[in-house]
Amino acid sequence: MTAEIFPKVKTIDLRKKHIGPSCKVFFSHDPIKIVRAKGQYMYDENGVRYLDCINNVAHVGHSHPMVVKAGAEQMELLNTNSRFLHDNLVQYAQRLQATLPEKLSVCYFVNSGSEANDLALRLAWEYTGHKDVITLDNAYHGHVSSLINISPYKFHQLANAEQSKSVHVALSPDLYRGNYRQDHPDPATAYADDVNNLIQKAHEKGHKVAAFIAESLQSCGGQVIPPAGYFQKVAQHVHRAGGLFIADEVQVGFGRVGTHFWAFQLQGEDFVPDIVTMGKPIGNGHPMSCVVTTREVAEAFKNSGMEYFNTFGGNPVSCAIGLAVLDVIEKEDLQGNALRVGGYLTRLLEQQKEKHPLVGDIRGRGLFVGAELVRDRVKLTPATAEAQDIIYKLKEQHILLSADGPHRNVLKFKPPMCFSEEDADMVVEKIDQILTGTLNAPLTFLPANITKSSHDILEGLSSVIVCIRSVTLKTWGEQNQQPLNRQDSCFVRRC
Amino acid sequence: MTAEIFPKVKTIDLRKKHIGPSCKVFFSHDPIKIVRAKGQYMYDENGVRYLDCINNVAHVGHSHPMVVKAGAEQMELLNTNSRFLHDNLVQYAQRLQATLPEKLSVCYFVNSGSEANDLALRLAWEYTGHKDVITLDNAYHGHVSSLINISPYKFHQLANAEQSKSVHVALSPDLYRGNYRQDHPDPATAYADDVNNLIQKAHEKGHKVAAFIAESLQSCGGQVIPPAGYFQKVAQHVHRAGGLFIADEVQVGFGRVGTHFWAFQLQGEDFVPDIVTMGKPIGNGHPMSCVVTTREVAEAFKNSGMEYFNTFGGNPVSCAIGLAVLDVIEKEDLQGNALRVGGYLTRLLEQQKEKHPLVGDIRGRGLFVGAELVRDRVKLTPATAEAQDIIYKLKEQHILLSADGPHRNVLKFKPPMCFSEEDADMVVEKIDQILTGTLNAPLTFLPANITKSSHDILEGLSSVIVCIRSVTLKTWGEQNQQPLNRQDSCFVRRC
Repeated sequence: MTAEIFPKVKTIDLRKKHIGPSCKVFFSHDPIKIVRAKGQYMYDENGVRYLDCINNVAHVGHSHPMVVKAGAEQMELLNTNSRFLHDNLVQYAQRLQATLPEKLSVCYFVNSGSEANDLALRLAWEYTGHKDVITLDNAYHGHVSSLINISPYKFHQLANAEQSKSVHVALSPDLYRGNYRQDHPDPATAYADDVNNLIQKAHEKGHKVAAFIAESLQSCGGQVIPPAGYFQKVAQHVHRAGGLFIADEVQVGFGRVGTHFWAFQLQGEDFVPDIVTMGKPIGNGHPMSCVVTTREVAEAFKNSGMEYFNTFGGNPVSCAIGLAVLDVIEKEDLQGNALRVGGYLTRLLEQQKEKHPLVGDIRGRGLFVGAELVRDRVKLTPATAEAQDIIYKLKEQHILLSADGPHRNVLKFKPPMCFSEEDADMVVEKIDQILTGTLNAPLTFLPANITKSSHDILEGLSSVIVCIRSVTLKTWGEQNQQPLNRQDSCFVRRC
Repeated sequence: MTAEIFPKVKTIDLRKKHIGPSCKVFFSHDPIKIVRAKGQYMYDENGVRYLDCINNVAHVGHSHPMVVKAGAEQMELLNTNSRFLHDNLVQYAQRLQATLPEKLSVCYFVNSGSEANDLALRLAWEYTGHKDVITLDNAYHGHVSSLINISPYKFHQLANAEQSKSVHVALSPDLYRGNYRQDHPDPATAYADDVNNLIQKAHEKGHKVAAFIAESLQSCGGQVIPPAGYFQKVAQHVHRAGGLFIADEVQVGFGRVGTHFWAFQLQGEDFVPDIVTMGKPIGNGHPMSCVVTTREVAEAFKNSGMEYFNTFGGNPVSCAIGLAVLDVIEKEDLQGNALRVGGYLTRLLEQQKEKHPLVGDIRGRGLFVGAELVRDRVKLTPATAEAQDIIYKLKEQHILLSADGPHRNVLKFKPPMCFSEEDADMVVEKIDQILTGTLNAPLTFLPANITKSSHDILEGLSSVIVCIRSVTLKTWGEQNQQPLNRQDSCFVRRC
């Protein structure tokens, strides 16, 4: 297999011609062509090595030989649907179950986090007979239509967003920027009470709540870590209303948080969701995912009378790959590594917070870490442009990092789990250098009425950096008849 | 890799414990454990070989070495998301485009037929600004919630089915059993007029139609082949209403129909859908799929302001596999084989129709063939029990075939494309023997109020065969507090 078929310019040209323009590349003014990857490193067509701090999908490391071998050997033998008995399917279900509280014992294998979350909703609708869903602000749960409806992260992007009447958006339990902060005496109760208020309001309108859904730690929403006890209190309210608790582990599961295998377990032993959804890291890049629930919910779903069949879900190749991922996590103690290296990375970033006023908050569990940048530590003015500046400059240093959250000002670390202390040293050292440099060179913001032609001029400049207050996204879209890439939101020139 | 880990009884036990009970196996009273497969043959744990007449997913043959090699080599090199440039993605898009009419030039790569059809709806909703969807009776378009809504094949299974007010069900253009049959002077116009009537009724209610969606040939719906010209006329009506035409090629694409690469092309050169969705055969079992549309639709979707990102969709491994599938189809002239062997199979089945009154209709294109069984050629009484009897007896002869359609009385041939004339001889010869035997041994139907205990007695008998008039499905479900497997609908004893 040739790693490169076309020169980069031709690849870009064909992509423009044949790939949906809504599908954005990283660093769109100068995208990266990656031809191979190993562990936590990716290589471009010229052999330049990039340190990968963002790919939580390549969970046990890019192209891990044990995973590749398991997939290749099973492909050679058999890849068929789950209407036939196969040991990989049941063995994998058994292995996954062993990582979970006992009552979460029934699995449905599907192909993506989106399929998993959609099925979770179907299970909840069927079990409860209710319709409404409570979701967190800034949440992202997937790209199929039912999930766009419960993903404020997505539907807020729409010019003509119309929120479904059966979807209720609860406060994000963000202790740094949210309504109830670290200085609040009991933020867990306060945020859970907000969910309860939504339930009451729904009841007043004659609606009934089928489910509360949340990522165990909010990822796209800004690396938010809910206060311990919050999920228990929410579950009480939701259960009282006859609804279910869905924990979305698509981004954060499989040992990433270090102390536990699942991020919902951070809330305490006394918390067990009714449904858990898994995705991204589950197959180290292979398209697969899973929904796990209780026997009661599964039986209710069956009793609807509708069979569930998923053509690819639970095929022997996907299961072989899933098993190999579990083996590698265990064999290489990657959960332990996440705890150790994640802790080390967090400490390094805390030092940056002490050194640079721009670094407002460091929060993380294991190798899921966020660094929120602010221009003012009291007003918490989001340092969106500066976050984008760092991302772009790190790219020039061959380090891949991203910024996310509603203000795109949270540096988001979620690297392959084989990330090392040396890697952490390298990325934080570069951030330190950039932050020092940035502070010496003041930013000049372009006016709000930036035009298409100035965009064109700027696009050519490698020193272009990106700035935005999230609300200006729409302005740009309206003026230029095209939406902005999240990475590229709007442009700022350094003077 | 060990092909068998557990004894079969343990596999069944673990499956009952850990796999969602809505996920049914084939032949549930005595399911098959398959451990390897090659070409059109599958092998159980004892090395018994089964001829596969049903797996349209293993399109170029089970475990095809060229596909396995392409997947394994790319897995070793790189598997990452499409935010990075990669040549496999653009080369694959270019190759797919070359099989389609020129205006279908923009691809979105996703992970399953369900993800593809859901995205097709999102494209149509966004492009038209309308909401309503027209679907065909008995249609199946996928398992995510938005598609259950437009799949009568699924929502008719629900005890408490509630049809969405924005979904309209058009007559299935079935020339054998439908409202307008082969003796109708112009069934294409008559069926298209039905769609137009639905559009008018929707308009009267103030609704607007976003899309008409149909499989190019209805598969689960009963191997229905719409009359040529029908799609053109429907497209005229739908376009006039501002809607789009979505051709679902998930089951029938990639050369299966023999004369053309895509089944919608059977309608004539003058027909081009606005959106085409692909799935099952696209990756020979690897979870992948694709939506292709026009530049206009793609730009409208982009202008909504919402980015589209699919974690696994279009990854280099999926694209390498997709490219290998296209290569094998071409290199081994599988489209030509489908035309030749499909024609041969159809002729053999036509002879069965002449010989056995039970065989009411033979219809097919290439290796997509249906044989509809009826007890009465005038009344067209569905021979559901007999169809199930054949399926079960073929299984005992180590031949895998299925029955589908709203009455589960259509024998459905959709084998891997390497199916041979010898394979066709073998399956038809066995069917001939079974039909002859069946006719000599009259069936005694169990009464409608079959009880759970009689079910238990019968379940132990290997001679048990399955019977149902589709309407009795619900009766069983109500009496036994459990839904029936489609394969196992209800039981009949041969005397």
